[in-house]
Amino acid sequence: MAKYPHILTGIRLYGNPDESGRIRRTDRIPDTIPGISRFQQVVLHQGRIERFFLDSLNKYSNIEVERGVLPAELDIDPSKSEDYDAYPITVKLQHLGDDEATPFQHSTNVPDGLFRSSLAKDDTDDLIRKSKGKEGTTETVRAKYMIGCDGAHSWTRRQLGFHMEGEQTDFIWGVLDIVPITNFPDVRMRCAIHSAESGSVMVIPRENKLVRLYIQLTEVSSAGQQVDRSTITPEIILKAAQKIMSPYKLSYDYCDWWTAYQIGQRVGNKFSCDDRVFLAGDAVHTHSPKAGQGMNVSMQDAYNLGWKIGLVVNGIAKRSILKTYQSERRRVAQDLIAFDYRFSRLFSGRPAKDAADEAGISMSEFKDAFEKGNMFASGLAVDYGASVLVAKAGDSADEGDGTDVGPQTNGHTNGIGKAVGKQELASNIKMGMRFPSFQVLNQADARPWQFAEFLKSDGRFRVILFAGNLKNTQQFERVQAFGEQLAKPDSFIHRHTPPTKRIDSIIEIFMIHSAPRREVEFLDLHEIYHPFDEKEGWDYNKVFVDDLSYHEGHGEAYKNYGVDKERGCVVIARPDQYVGWIGELEDVRHMDRYFSEILLPQA
Amino acid sequence: MAKYPHILTGIRLYGNPDESGRIRRTDRIPDTIPGISRFQQVVLHQGRIERFFLDSLNKYSNIEVERGVLPAELDIDPSKSEDYDAYPITVKLQHLGDDEATPFQHSTNVPDGLFRSSLAKDDTDDLIRKSKGKEGTTETVRAKYMIGCDGAHSWTRRQLGFHMEGEQTDFIWGVLDIVPITNFPDVRMRCAIHSAESGSVMVIPRENKLVRLYIQLTEVSSAGQQVDRSTITPEIILKAAQKIMSPYKLSYDYCDWWTAYQIGQRVGNKFSCDDRVFLAGDAVHTHSPKAGQGMNVSMQDAYNLGWKIGLVVNGIAKRSILKTYQSERRRVAQDLIAFDYRFSRLFSGRPAKDAADEAGISMSEFKDAFEKGNMFASGLAVDYGASVLVAKAGDSADEGDGTDVGPQTNGHTNGIGKAVGKQELASNIKMGMRFPSFQVLNQADARPWQFAEFLKSDGRFRVILFAGNLKNTQQFERVQAFGEQLAKPDSFIHRHTPPTKRIDSIIEIFMIHSAPRREVEFLDLHEIYHPFDEKEGWDYNKVFVDDLSYHEGHGEAYKNYGVDKERGCVVIARPDQYVGWIGELEDVRHMDRYFSEILLPQA
Repeated sequence: MAKYPHILTGIRLYGNPDESGRIRRTDRIPDTIPGISRFQQVVLHQGRIERFFLDSLNKYSNIEVERGVLPAELDIDPSKSEDYDAYPITVKLQHLGDDEATPFQHSTNVPDGLFRSSLAKDDTDDLIRKSKGKEGTTETVRAKYMIGCDGAHSWTRRQLGFHMEGEQTDFIWGVLDIVPITNFPDVRMRCAIHSAESGSVMVIPRENKLVRLYIQLTEVSSAGQQVDRSTITPEIILKAAQKIMSPYKLSYDYCDWWTAYQIGQRVGNKFSCDDRVFLAGDAVHTHSPKAGQGMNVSMQDAYNLGWKIGLVVNGIAKRSILKTYQSERRRVAQDLIAFDYRFSRLFSGRPAKDAADEAGISMSEFKDAFEKGNMFASGLAVDYGASVLVAKAGDSADEGDGTDVGPQTNGHTNGIGKAVGKQELASNIKMGMRFPSFQVLNQADARPWQFAEFLKSDGRFRVILFAGNLKNTQQFERVQAFGEQLAKPDSFIHRHTPPTKRIDSIIEIFMIHSAPRREVEFLDLHEIYHPFDEKEGWDYNKVFVDDLSYHEGHGEAYKNYGVDKERGCVVIARPDQYVGWIGELEDVRHMDRYFSEILLPQA
Repeated sequence: MAKYPHILTGIRLYGNPDESGRIRRTDRIPDTIPGISRFQQVVLHQGRIERFFLDSLNKYSNIEVERGVLPAELDIDPSKSEDYDAYPITVKLQHLGDDEATPFQHSTNVPDGLFRSSLAKDDTDDLIRKSKGKEGTTETVRAKYMIGCDGAHSWTRRQLGFHMEGEQTDFIWGVLDIVPITNFPDVRMRCAIHSAESGSVMVIPRENKLVRLYIQLTEVSSAGQQVDRSTITPEIILKAAQKIMSPYKLSYDYCDWWTAYQIGQRVGNKFSCDDRVFLAGDAVHTHSPKAGQGMNVSMQDAYNLGWKIGLVVNGIAKRSILKTYQSERRRVAQDLIAFDYRFSRLFSGRPAKDAADEAGISMSEFKDAFEKGNMFASGLAVDYGASVLVAKAGDSADEGDGTDVGPQTNGHTNGIGKAVGKQELASNIKMGMRFPSFQVLNQADARPWQFAEFLKSDGRFRVILFAGNLKNTQQFERVQAFGEQLAKPDSFIHRHTPPTKRIDSIIEIFMIHSAPRREVEFLDLHEIYHPFDEKEGWDYNKVFVDDLSYHEGHGEAYKNYGVDKERGCVVIARPDQYVGWIGELEDVRHMDRYFSEILLPQA
């Protein structure tokens, strides 16, 4: 079991103490509500995720991660911000000495759990001051774009003069990562334990024999002040847990890590300066760690931003798409904070003694929040509003964070005011939400695939043609005619693809048809659906079918996607798998309008 | 797709040429017959498997693989062979110089495909002669055990004076690993193509865009002689393929590798000398590569032998278990050769023109062989005969390769002549076959697991207690009484476990019960089922339940294993997952007898 992350299965709720005040099981729910995703929740150490990223950077790029470097000065020239070739950003960097870069934490074998926790003071300025004046330790970088992922105390945010909106609560929580020695019966299940008077504990089993405990420290209070750090130790945290979990015993021999934190729920007022300097992660949203959203939402910030900057820097996309970063991600952060506010209150409150006890929290409301929060925590509830990238009918300012990110109506509009997709053609592929994944078979080799595996995050847009029933002659002709349109020398695909590149390098076409796989011959389809290469022959990985697999059952993709099996439809997916537009096979002019707004014409 | 091995889905059979002699599709079957295993066939390059082994050796051991070393002399002292502490083997090794160890293959960018193929002459003696006389290049190794996995020309086999039994056929086959440029419609499916007069082709899609083609070379013939190697080139092989696959076109720009071989079907007369020197892999069985059994059966040889030598060398098991290597694996090799003989004949023959054409092979017989061969090729048809390790009632010489590998009837027999298991208690857990895997849930955390994941190949025997319905008081008492017996200070577990080691280090106990998971409290069970450790608490990974998972459905393990849900039974699995014994919870004396025959008592 050693190398596996721990998959969580169920949640036990403990509360409604009996007359003697002892906790007891009040309810059980699945940890991941069935049906949300083909994946389940796992507990994966944040350091391990970072390791994956570092390994991948190393393997697939020549990007080098520098440590022990701090920014000292930032200048932005706003007059150059709309010039595609300009470098409007100047940053001065300080290189720290080895001693400064690996600061002293603690003298015991367990590191200081409060090092850079939310209870610790920001030490960035101290570090910069100390490292100043060293000869040969500064560097000036000129950049087109800059992203500040520099945490809750974000130096970048302060330079920009942006601020965080929201509040700090008085709840203090401790965290222990231990191999527990206990007779508590559900220690290998995720548990939410509400004691009568001593606060709450959340139990989260981890890989190997480790268990993470979130423990409310009712006897430590900030009362609006900075907490006295010296009063918080692993021993104090363990004692609090023992009191809450009584009469069960709890101790440990091995502690892997510990910390303590204070819950604050805040969102940055702006996420970007001139669409040149961006903020992401804790730099623009802080909240409790309970729902596991800190790392997840922050990675999704960067995931949303990465392909946009990438396409702009490479001269493929227009700068106007960058505005959607704030409109999409600030709205998500606002929703997250609202959720976290409610969830944290339910967690830190004491259970109600009875229905009349209004100061206590109701256990059934708590269970309900857990279940509803599941969808939110899965990341799949994200629904981006109307914008140049999402062809919804609505108002882009209303549906986002207030920023106007709608399409221009002047210029190359193709006679269409604004591309608006036809949601009714694919009832379960929601514009603004992630393209869902179901099993389809490769037409050429009958292998079953989760279709999402082909929507790689490599910066390409995808046109997904639900080709319907190819055995119907009329439908087959519609599909071939659609192919003809895309293959034309002046089609939006040719217009936006640099002539030296392969035809699928900016916009990739996939087909999913619904005829029986054995009755369709791959090579009968228009060549645009399986481009030919002189050295590699036909491309066999673009055409799929919704049919029964030899071993993996029927994916029922058309049914699950909510698409008509006879007539099909066309979907545009953004490089991040979010759905941009839906239409008929005859709506090529609307697709043209959609892409014209986003992409630059190539010579 | 780049990093995935290619999973095969279906097989297309081409043959029964029409009046103009052109091939056409005659049938389709799934590549892996449904129901055989939870895994499917994949095509994985042999070099990649070797890489996994090398990486694992490097990670988990301090074993170093030396290359460029050849054996020169072998001495075995038979008088010491039964002495556990002796080193009866002396081997003299020659270290080759760099030039000799990496011999010249070819001057083009594609390596010589015939280098060390079965069509090439054995160059071992040449190499040894050439490298002799170099100062400081010999080394003498004294060893307890030695395994010769040195291929079809095995030097070790020749030193022992053993020989291969069987014949060489006249069929010559070429192999091309190419990225094909073709209009053949099924090039991404596994295909068996029988042309009317030009021979056969097998198509096996590989990872990325590669396809492996096995091509019968009807115009090259050995006619009982050594084949003229200079007549075989990639161009000749491609031409043969083009002729067979006509009227479809086939060419390529990229060739990854090629070779040619002649089919020989032979088995070694002995697999071991004094149970000190063993032969495995091609050194004792050669056959056609068509069914993908070369690497697989050879690895299984080593897998069968590894744990036996390991336990003997570590003073845990008796030397008498080593005899079962030949009895088990030579029998498997004999069965493999019989299968291969029939399969190869069907492959190399031309298709029958009609039912009266007796010289031709029938396409429906061919299809049948493919389907039946599937079970064989999966490795799951292996059924080891009666021996000290497999408590079947039958005669060990009859059921193996003729060697007597039954238990001794003198000594510590516990009043039982021979432990014989009760097959009827678990109709789908066959003694002599691999313990099948079904989904069960961990009692403590409700996670679903394929039970086989817990039967790790770490040299431990397992006692798997099907504890039945623990909610029945009488059954619960049977289970606790069984636990009492195993926990006794003089039980077979204590007797065979070195006192300094953990109680589960030689024989590990697992429980799978059939009561509802939520109605059983883990800590109510006898401690032997969840040993306590002072630093780590209870062991939560030994007790499982056949119940509904939150997300993965119901494994129906009792039903699938064919075990009574109320009363259960006990199964012993060998360290290689093969089933050794089955009995009632009251048959502890028989289990004692089984282990006494195999394991040495520990001080």
